Amino acid sequence: MKEIKGGITAAKGFMAADTAAGIKYEGRTDMAMVYSKEPCISAGTFTSNVVKAACVKWDMNIVKSEDKMQAIVINSGIANACTGKEGFEACEKTAKAVEEALGIPFNSVAVASTGVIGMQLPVEKLESGVKDMATKLSDSTEAGTKASKAIMTTDTVNKEIAVEFEIGGKTVTLGGMSKGSGMIHPNMCTMLAFLCTDLCITKEMLQKAVSDVVALSFNMITVDGDTSTNDILITMANSLADNPVIDKEGQDYETFKEALAYVCVNLAKRMAADGEGASKLFEAQVVNASSKADAKTLARAIVGSNLSKAAIFGCDANFGRFLCAMGYSGADFDQEDVELFFKSKNGSLKVFDHGRPLDFDEDYAVKIMEAEAVTVYVDMNEGSDEATAWGCDLTYDYVKINADYRS
Amino acid sequence: MKEIKGGITAAKGFMAADTAAGIKYEGRTDMAMVYSKEPCISAGTFTSNVVKAACVKWDMNIVKSEDKMQAIVINSGIANACTGKEGFEACEKTAKAVEEALGIPFNSVAVASTGVIGMQLPVEKLESGVKDMATKLSDSTEAGTKASKAIMTTDTVNKEIAVEFEIGGKTVTLGGMSKGSGMIHPNMCTMLAFLCTDLCITKEMLQKAVSDVVALSFNMITVDGDTSTNDILITMANSLADNPVIDKEGQDYETFKEALAYVCVNLAKRMAADGEGASKLFEAQVVNASSKADAKTLARAIVGSNLSKAAIFGCDANFGRFLCAMGYSGADFDQEDVELFFKSKNGSLKVFDHGRPLDFDEDYAVKIMEAEAVTVYVDMNEGSDEATAWGCDLTYDYVKINADYRS
Repeated sequence: MKEIKGGITAAKGFMAADTAAGIKYEGRTDMAMVYSKEPCISAGTFTSNVVKAACVKWDMNIVKSEDKMQAIVINSGIANACTGKEGFEACEKTAKAVEEALGIPFNSVAVASTGVIGMQLPVEKLESGVKDMATKLSDSTEAGTKASKAIMTTDTVNKEIAVEFEIGGKTVTLGGMSKGSGMIHPNMCTMLAFLCTDLCITKEMLQKAVSDVVALSFNMITVDGDTSTNDILITMANSLADNPVIDKEGQDYETFKEALAYVCVNLAKRMAADGEGASKLFEAQVVNASSKADAKTLARAIVGSNLSKAAIFGCDANFGRFLCAMGYSGADFDQEDVELFFKSKNGSLKVFDHGRPLDFDEDYAVKIMEAEAVTVYVDMNEGSDEATAWGCDLTYDYVKINADYRS
Repeated sequence: MKEIKGGITAAKGFMAADTAAGIKYEGRTDMAMVYSKEPCISAGTFTSNVVKAACVKWDMNIVKSEDKMQAIVINSGIANACTGKEGFEACEKTAKAVEEALGIPFNSVAVASTGVIGMQLPVEKLESGVKDMATKLSDSTEAGTKASKAIMTTDTVNKEIAVEFEIGGKTVTLGGMSKGSGMIHPNMCTMLAFLCTDLCITKEMLQKAVSDVVALSFNMITVDGDTSTNDILITMANSLADNPVIDKEGQDYETFKEALAYVCVNLAKRMAADGEGASKLFEAQVVNASSKADAKTLARAIVGSNLSKAAIFGCDANFGRFLCAMGYSGADFDQEDVELFFKSKNGSLKVFDHGRPLDFDEDYAVKIMEAEAVTVYVDMNEGSDEATAWGCDLTYDYVKINADYRS
């Protein structure tokens, strides 16, 4: 497997377009379209929030049916959540605009929205946007990059990636893009992610791979503990790579799953690092835990704590906060077993050893924590399971961004 | 029942003292002692964090035994958490210093600490502090007030209260003090609280009243979602009011419980309003929920969300964030049933009605949210249970305080 240039348009037969529909922002693009020349099988994961946005309900209907998927329309600015019947009708009207413009069935069109909750979408602007994008679809790398920019909200950078790998002597490509910066917490984290591959695979195996990989990538990041109403990850596969179909577990499935994990972890970490107001990536690695579930719970509690996040921002090696977060996480353990380290590219330092605080060099601790990516590494010494979670620091800018998001 | 002047020394037979032991702070007091002339029965609730501070373990041993309690020694500055065997020995040495100075058994002395985790207590300074306080014990109102100031950490105001009520023709007094500002989240919220009463009651009935009331007062506040290692609430009762003993449920028990609830809700709300960096009290009232458990879960999710808290800070009536928090809380409900209002002393405004956003006057919404206490009022229209939770807004100062707490 190797990383290649590009994103959502990297795999054979996928095209993208963007437009400035004037939904909420001025002077920037706010709509994107992804289109496959061939109908695709699809798989997806969706927010666990019981308040689901209209687009989440719309897409779940498609992904959970046997219907093929051929296009996705995404808008930023307004989330189309808490919008009642009118909101669901907006999804249908958008899909029907694609049907009219591209001649594909409206129930093969997924929709996704991100932005303010509780406002109705300006449907006519979306319809005009669809019409415009239908004439601009392109399989160029540039078209993919522009699409990844159009779906940003408070993101400061766009996120896209593509990889190539071999299945049965055929080159398969997987490309993707995502957005996400605030309202980010498993399950799903608050985010939109779209992956396109020319792989030939059954729907069942595609969904299995996606669900497994999401659990250890996107569902292991948190920015602010707030699980969005709008989380959507959709993977489309159009079979154009012409590889022998993957219809069971085995080497080919593992090869694909590895590529999928590489892409998802990469996008997830970049979303965490670009968390609202974030100045650095904050990683927690928990090893030798007594179960996988505990390892995940502990890692997520560490990166999810406001006090931990503020300490990471301040380069304050206040390790008690991390132990405190582990303690209230719900995982069971004995603090007498625990060793805790701070790590980064600038060094490694043990600060807590089997229940006792260690004397340590504060200046060295600050040096480690000043790096742009800081890891809290915890050895539980109680078993053999491990997990990694990603988040970001809590900064003044997080408060600034969120104290007046709507204006 | 009526509120009276004073705090921890208001009830008959209770005395207090404070001192500046130089544990961590300079130029301020950092130790307090509460003492009852008569041995007391005690009841308590303690942190649910599995990483429990040494003092929590020490006090649980006393409260859960048949031993009487006669004194409590509290220090601020260092939490004595994550300190291993040495930390537990510090508790014992402190209690033995009280035994020596006051001639009461060391296992009748509770200890409580609040401050930085992962540092050892300077035991000799604590022993000197105990010696000094033993000579200064007083039942004056001033002594109680000074004690309530000595236990503060990042608190900006001290918290004390006292009430009087009648049981069987006798006047009973209940006084208390608490501290808490950061690392505050049920169960228990991060805090220390000490209540002293001259009531005559059995240990069993005292613990029952305390547990019931804590669940609806201190356990319904949150500042930052971080459940401390050090939460302690202890109630001491010395029988000096000479009322007929309360040994079962009934009118007398209800009278006491009502007074206890008044005191606990008052202290809890003041802790929430004084949350680290807070500029206002943020209350969530959930009514007509389908169960008490759901009502509590929903109310706590609303006041616990970083995004909700930031919106309250910014006076931004971004009601979707509150619905989003309700959605991921774990409670089950249908958004089509929900009505949501913003309320304060400046007015009341419905913004969401049975699944649909309402048009509303933004200026009026800002006026409501500018008050020093803002309520999000949610009618679930699904049952008859209700709950109230308290928190505070998320401000720049919260980040500032916690980015470099130790220095």
